[in-house]
Amino acid sequence: MLITDPVSWYYLAGFTGDAGALIVSRRGTILFTDGRFTAQARQETSAIRIIPQKGSLASAVGQFFKGGGRVRVGFDPGQVTVAQLRAVQKEVGPRVRLVPVNGLVQQLRNRKDPEEIGRMRKAAMLASGIMKDALKLLKPGVREFEVAAEIEYQMRQRGGSGPAFETIVAFGERSAYPHARPTGKRLRKNELVVLDLGVILAHYCSDITRTVVVGGASARVRRWHKAVQEAQEAAIESTNAGVRCEEVDAAARRVLAGYRLDRYFVHSTGHGLGLAVHEDPRIAKGQTQTLEPGNVITIEPGVYVPGVGGIRIEDDVAIHAGRTEVLTRGARELIEI
Amino acid sequence: MLITDPVSWYYLAGFTGDAGALIVSRRGTILFTDGRFTAQARQETSAIRIIPQKGSLASAVGQFFKGGGRVRVGFDPGQVTVAQLRAVQKEVGPRVRLVPVNGLVQQLRNRKDPEEIGRMRKAAMLASGIMKDALKLLKPGVREFEVAAEIEYQMRQRGGSGPAFETIVAFGERSAYPHARPTGKRLRKNELVVLDLGVILAHYCSDITRTVVVGGASARVRRWHKAVQEAQEAAIESTNAGVRCEEVDAAARRVLAGYRLDRYFVHSTGHGLGLAVHEDPRIAKGQTQTLEPGNVITIEPGVYVPGVGGIRIEDDVAIHAGRTEVLTRGARELIEI
Repeated sequence: MLITDPVSWYYLAGFTGDAGALIVSRRGTILFTDGRFTAQARQETSAIRIIPQKGSLASAVGQFFKGGGRVRVGFDPGQVTVAQLRAVQKEVGPRVRLVPVNGLVQQLRNRKDPEEIGRMRKAAMLASGIMKDALKLLKPGVREFEVAAEIEYQMRQRGGSGPAFETIVAFGERSAYPHARPTGKRLRKNELVVLDLGVILAHYCSDITRTVVVGGASARVRRWHKAVQEAQEAAIESTNAGVRCEEVDAAARRVLAGYRLDRYFVHSTGHGLGLAVHEDPRIAKGQTQTLEPGNVITIEPGVYVPGVGGIRIEDDVAIHAGRTEVLTRGARELIEI
Repeated sequence: MLITDPVSWYYLAGFTGDAGALIVSRRGTILFTDGRFTAQARQETSAIRIIPQKGSLASAVGQFFKGGGRVRVGFDPGQVTVAQLRAVQKEVGPRVRLVPVNGLVQQLRNRKDPEEIGRMRKAAMLASGIMKDALKLLKPGVREFEVAAEIEYQMRQRGGSGPAFETIVAFGERSAYPHARPTGKRLRKNELVVLDLGVILAHYCSDITRTVVVGGASARVRRWHKAVQEAQEAAIESTNAGVRCEEVDAAARRVLAGYRLDRYFVHSTGHGLGLAVHEDPRIAKGQTQTLEPGNVITIEPGVYVPGVGGIRIEDDVAIHAGRTEVLTRGARELIEI
């Protein structure tokens, strides 16, 4: 199996470089990487053959197979580009058959073992603590990017390797954009604030969102927040090993429909979380696969009213055999600061 | 032409979301994106048709072409995965021919116009200022990740949207890893320090490296640094429109060979820089393409002695018609703090 995704080769072999290719076979594991990473690879891995890559990656892989017998080499069609496949096929010659194998490593990654869950628990706790402190920064006049800067500084200062994604700090009507990027906008009194942050700690990602009002919330905003909070509770409640992902999504959507707010819920309910911030399983309509022990997912319903504002509440949930565990911490009620 | 790379669709259409697909045709431009991004897309773009994507991206694109006549649609084989191509081909049906077109948008992106160069100048100046201040943080006892945290905090505080890549802060023998990730290691007196940082400002990347010693440098380290500094000067000197990229790489390598240090120069001399931190042209062996006005590249030779330490000096260079411009600022001499 040819592995071309840096996250997957870290998972399998511990190598943290971001250029190269890993081949896993019955006869051993081989890592191809270039001069920037060979010394690092030797230090980070063990029981792996490291082949310094001189020319292109395709020619390094081709050289390796040249002169050997007939073999079949798996590759992930979701990771390998059309150009990469053509280049490798050309170099390896006709005796090597490249076979598409969908998401094999991803499937292994989706089922976290207890040590991985332990790391994710720590990452989630760190994100929760940073969220708690970030709420204290919310004073009228502060700018979105100032809050984002402080959040990401704290991630580093507290031992994380950085943000798992671009931190979202959205004030007022900008909170209606689910993926708002921080701008120079200053916070005004009584505005909605959406904070969505995740930290990478020991390679594992966390992801948490809270929505607050600095000042007082209108009756309308309180009702929206109540609806989202209930939708999130219903979705978390429905989460269990053996449950289809689409059922968890439906649980959130049903509550919002009861408030006639479902049409403002413009994204899916959640996603898998691990070494990457977006993994399988996806908690969305049409996802018939079932949750299984070792999955870690986000539950993050929201409502977004264009021109007015948005509300999202997000926590990370680990699925164990017969029970679930919410990894993130912190009050979900509408906080009026 | 089907565009699936977020950086390229920002370049062409101004949309900053990271999920969707753009189709550019003689008859107009169409953006497919999901519910998280549709409101944002309407605000960020103009004269573009936005089609909210319900199911998969492939089925949205397929629906669009269904019932139309015979058409040819270009795609970039370096951006589209094998799985994406199969899914789109299946949905669009036999009347649509998908044609591989290599790096078409990338070629446009490689030739920056004066406004883009202006933005890159600002990003480079910002990175240079942050580098200058970061050097003041280097006191015995400070940890690598503390310095990285402060650097990335300053990026945000000064208006950047964040680091263009994971900031490299490497002390002592860790400086021998060209892509070292910051750890908890504390700085000791007389150790080498490599700082490699880049900030994204108004979407454009910068990239600068300096190597210093906190205390006094050994004669050996001074000689290495002199060699790298001269290699960088020679490479910058050789940079000009019409020159082959491999010649710039050779200019740096030749100087290091004169010091018998070329075998410690384990990577290429530089890379294109722009909306992405690694773009074409690559300044490496075997790169026969010529530099042209509008290219912005890094020049970053180094020597890395395993178990001892490494040295790298990096600046960003814009190629104009008949002249070149170094965008980054700051002394390149070995600073002994």
